[in-house]
Amino acid sequence: MKQQVRIQDEFWNDYAELVRQTVIPYQWEALNDRIEGAAPSFAIRNFRIAAGLEEGEFGGLVFQDSDLAKWLEAVGHSLRRHPDPELERIADGAIDLIGQAQFEDGYLNTYFTIKEPGKQWTNLHDAHELYCAGHFIEAAVAYAEATGKRKLLEIVCRFVDLIDRRFGTEPGQIRGYCGHQEIELALVKLFALTGEERYLNLSRYFIDERGSKPNYFVDEWERRGRTSHWVQGIASAPNLEYNQSHLPVREQSVAAGHSVRAVYMYAAMADLARLTGDAGLREACERLWANATGKQMYITGGIGSTHLGEAFSFDYDLPNDTVYAETCASIGLIFWARRMLRLEAKSDYADVMERALYNNVLGSMSKDGKHFFYVNPLEVWPEASAKNPDRHHVKPARQKWFGCSCCPPNVARLLSSLSDYIYDVSEDGRTLYTHLFIGSEASFELDGRRVNLRQRSGLPWDGRVAFEVSLPEGGESAAFELALRVPGWFQSAAPAMHVNGQPQTFRMDNGYAKVERNWAEGDKLEWLLPLETKLVAAHPLIRADAGKAAIQRGPLVYCLEEADNAAPLSSLSLAVDPKLSERLGDGLLDGCIVVEGEGLAADETAWPEEGLPYRPLRKLDKPVRFKAIPYFLWGNREPGEMSVWLRV
Amino acid sequence: MKQQVRIQDEFWNDYAELVRQTVIPYQWEALNDRIEGAAPSFAIRNFRIAAGLEEGEFGGLVFQDSDLAKWLEAVGHSLRRHPDPELERIADGAIDLIGQAQFEDGYLNTYFTIKEPGKQWTNLHDAHELYCAGHFIEAAVAYAEATGKRKLLEIVCRFVDLIDRRFGTEPGQIRGYCGHQEIELALVKLFALTGEERYLNLSRYFIDERGSKPNYFVDEWERRGRTSHWVQGIASAPNLEYNQSHLPVREQSVAAGHSVRAVYMYAAMADLARLTGDAGLREACERLWANATGKQMYITGGIGSTHLGEAFSFDYDLPNDTVYAETCASIGLIFWARRMLRLEAKSDYADVMERALYNNVLGSMSKDGKHFFYVNPLEVWPEASAKNPDRHHVKPARQKWFGCSCCPPNVARLLSSLSDYIYDVSEDGRTLYTHLFIGSEASFELDGRRVNLRQRSGLPWDGRVAFEVSLPEGGESAAFELALRVPGWFQSAAPAMHVNGQPQTFRMDNGYAKVERNWAEGDKLEWLLPLETKLVAAHPLIRADAGKAAIQRGPLVYCLEEADNAAPLSSLSLAVDPKLSERLGDGLLDGCIVVEGEGLAADETAWPEEGLPYRPLRKLDKPVRFKAIPYFLWGNREPGEMSVWLRV
Repeated sequence: MKQQVRIQDEFWNDYAELVRQTVIPYQWEALNDRIEGAAPSFAIRNFRIAAGLEEGEFGGLVFQDSDLAKWLEAVGHSLRRHPDPELERIADGAIDLIGQAQFEDGYLNTYFTIKEPGKQWTNLHDAHELYCAGHFIEAAVAYAEATGKRKLLEIVCRFVDLIDRRFGTEPGQIRGYCGHQEIELALVKLFALTGEERYLNLSRYFIDERGSKPNYFVDEWERRGRTSHWVQGIASAPNLEYNQSHLPVREQSVAAGHSVRAVYMYAAMADLARLTGDAGLREACERLWANATGKQMYITGGIGSTHLGEAFSFDYDLPNDTVYAETCASIGLIFWARRMLRLEAKSDYADVMERALYNNVLGSMSKDGKHFFYVNPLEVWPEASAKNPDRHHVKPARQKWFGCSCCPPNVARLLSSLSDYIYDVSEDGRTLYTHLFIGSEASFELDGRRVNLRQRSGLPWDGRVAFEVSLPEGGESAAFELALRVPGWFQSAAPAMHVNGQPQTFRMDNGYAKVERNWAEGDKLEWLLPLETKLVAAHPLIRADAGKAAIQRGPLVYCLEEADNAAPLSSLSLAVDPKLSERLGDGLLDGCIVVEGEGLAADETAWPEEGLPYRPLRKLDKPVRFKAIPYFLWGNREPGEMSVWLRV
Repeated sequence: MKQQVRIQDEFWNDYAELVRQTVIPYQWEALNDRIEGAAPSFAIRNFRIAAGLEEGEFGGLVFQDSDLAKWLEAVGHSLRRHPDPELERIADGAIDLIGQAQFEDGYLNTYFTIKEPGKQWTNLHDAHELYCAGHFIEAAVAYAEATGKRKLLEIVCRFVDLIDRRFGTEPGQIRGYCGHQEIELALVKLFALTGEERYLNLSRYFIDERGSKPNYFVDEWERRGRTSHWVQGIASAPNLEYNQSHLPVREQSVAAGHSVRAVYMYAAMADLARLTGDAGLREACERLWANATGKQMYITGGIGSTHLGEAFSFDYDLPNDTVYAETCASIGLIFWARRMLRLEAKSDYADVMERALYNNVLGSMSKDGKHFFYVNPLEVWPEASAKNPDRHHVKPARQKWFGCSCCPPNVARLLSSLSDYIYDVSEDGRTLYTHLFIGSEASFELDGRRVNLRQRSGLPWDGRVAFEVSLPEGGESAAFELALRVPGWFQSAAPAMHVNGQPQTFRMDNGYAKVERNWAEGDKLEWLLPLETKLVAAHPLIRADAGKAAIQRGPLVYCLEEADNAAPLSSLSLAVDPKLSERLGDGLLDGCIVVEGEGLAADETAWPEEGLPYRPLRKLDKPVRFKAIPYFLWGNREPGEMSVWLRV
């Protein structure tokens, strides 16, 4: 095992425990349709019906199986961190059930078992069979790694072997690929665990084939008689951009279409570029990254600016109020960033990963771990969400569970596997990269020997980070390079480094501060990150943010809520010198830093009750104090207005 | 004939001539499917098929007949102003065709004649039969008034008599009303022309019955087997708010639902309140007016803030970019305002009428009279209209003709009947109100005798208005009161009045400047309206306009276009003192006043090509000059960005 990391961190331990003690059990109840007032999942019931244990109709969406898979993956990650025999027993039971629902030939999908038997692989565009397979692969890998149990892995490998026989360019094979990318990145994980090259090759086949001419999805749609799973009667031709099959992947330069599909695919492309040395794939990844994060990403790390197609729209189109910024899309962006970091250790990738994690993703879950946002807006006016149909998708309060509940189990599996996102050891085994500053106990092979590293971090509230080296196998010292990310938080001052209490110089490389030395047992490195509260502006081409600023402190984006500030929030503007100050919050915000400042508010009371809502411009602003809280905590009080961007 | 008005006005003559020489002939071509590159109308063809002159299927929407009716109404108004034997010959031919398509019993509707014979009156909710009847009534009244020819009137009266027999509260009658209000206001016109009380009573029946319990549309939907004209299979229950049948009309206080339906209904309610003295109806009109114009109207006089349902959303929700502000809705608002003025001469009503006319409605038509906006946005980013599906309905350029082409013929009938919107004589025949300042030759019965009034007006560019009285029947003088509207244009100074060159005092009453005297032949009154360019702010609860100002000069709202200013327009803000100046435009803007001023623009070039589109806030604004043009002229050059509201 090359690296072993266990998070021990004041901030993140709470989340890991929340996932373990609340989210995972709660979602198990949800998968079993036992949450009162929440839309039923049907996921377990579908498996019971498919396994012949129960009578009934298929329930939920065509890709409902994936919710169980994502839950199992989260369980796997959680067991790795925190063994839990009862949870493992439940998971083993679920795995047995999955095995019972599998066909002799390895096929596994409850929708086609129950509802459309015989129609397997006839609608790759809509039916998510390979997508669900991908999630089962990820679950099997995580579960095997955590528990050593191989039953789910064997189930999955039988299924993948079937897929490998059925798909490809040989005569008699289906020359297609999935309408929702996911299996591509999952197969890379399966390859990494098993070392079986054919899994890597199958992933490469799916990526290489995508977008080739003639287009598989158009042909398939014709073969089906121009029907769709989603509409009655004759359906229009598939929108190829929606699932990124409009062009061969190597020719894509602009992030387009359904954003979750896009970033899942880009993640697999980055994996394959690394593992195969494919320069064309790598360049496509780099182009797509520059576009997606440089021109189509919200300051919160959200992506996807329209709910119609849950999609990217176009460069600099980032409306805050009709936004989509789906939780799953930001999670996929984190997957992609993680893989870009493995392709090249460059702090830009880690910066985006951290931004999406601390803001869009953390903000999607309530403090109690039981309520989730699917859409993560940067501006909320609850009455508009209720009464203007253009904003119905933007909810002012988190919901219990979704009919399409892709997001909650995705949050669970990300947060429970967060230890995989902190460190990398370079290919040559000589450099240890720290991408995220999260307290942890870790163990690596460096300089040919085992090196333990303990990290402590005050983030996101305090910028003091400390590392301590130990050499469990003994010996004088280990010669390796520590590479610490210099975060792109817009700070005026550079971080300072001390080793064993003495100032330490470092060289900068691709956004990492590097220091090479013979590290001895007990060596201590302090990494002092300035944490100033900054006002941040958006690129002038982002019309939605023109004349506005956001507040950011370290990795955290802040927002204003009606609970702390007078509505309408739009009436507030920042004073010329807003004198931003930080203080510790209380109540919900206990232990958190809130930001206060000086602003001006339009004097609403001066308007008459009657008559036109327009009149000559007057300056009647009155000074007010405002209070901003971390974005990830919004929506945990009474529903009200929220805004990230404030008028300057 | 109580009043006779003929417009003679430098500004409006152009529009009247454009309608007569271009719009009406162009629309006749469109109705005959002879416009290349435009969606076919099918309107005439449907009548030829219904009349048995041609074989074929019904084409276009279920309410396609109304386009021909609206065209005929426009022709009627135009012939009143400007006799045109060739146009009259064409119209007479169309009327003959309509007569041939009418059933023996009076029924007239090509959809139910061709496509669903036997299904008449079974789907009042969707099928627009009474709506189309209403437009034929309006056409017949206008055509009879202009030409004295009664053929269309007879056709229509036969149809209305059938409707009157079929609908009502008696046993055997259909106790329903139309899914799209229109016939209610049309029947009042028919009553006014014919003096037949039953037409007034039928209108009152439709208004009184609307929204009563049990709801007719719900029952009808059940009777139809829960189907809808618009969806395949089972349809959900009708949204009663959409067509204002959610409550009895007298209980309605908030403008809600489809905005055209709403204002057509409110117009009929105002008519009925005046003609029947119904206090409950009058109060409902006043409440609805206060809500619609005080809380749900754009500064351009546009109404309807969402394209989903083409509807009002809720108080102060007036997004500029996802706006609807349909042309027909503003025209309906003008109809309503006109009738509120007859109910009570109050300048607020005329102010809104003028605002909608000079901005939203005039702006809907291109300078050439051949291209039209359906949606009239206050902010346009052409790339977003093309690439963000949330904004597909917002077009950056006017279109030739619409599949649902309700708006172009509505513009034509309004502009060709504008002479009806200028004056009113009070019930007692002693006060002559001038609501709009439009050059005209008019004749009234005042003080028991005929009084001619000539108005000259420099509007919208110059505020000097002059009136000259003449007494064609001779006599010393006529004793009456002139009441001139004091426009609510946010001017700092009050208008000045001179009579025969001498300053004249006046008393203010409900926003009108009143002067009573014995008017002698040749008496001249000057009415000097200050015309300053003003910066206008929106009510702070209109979140979309927070921190912004619009430019208004007299009745005209101004906007910035990319043709005159650098994109993105959002980068521009007004200087603290923007030093607004006026000058005569050239080219497209020949004869128009453009407004220039000083602003600040974000320095876009200072941003690097690569990397995040966020960075610490810096002030890098550079001074720029900006140029604003009248909103009604936007979109007549290269498509580009447009914005009414500017950051302060």
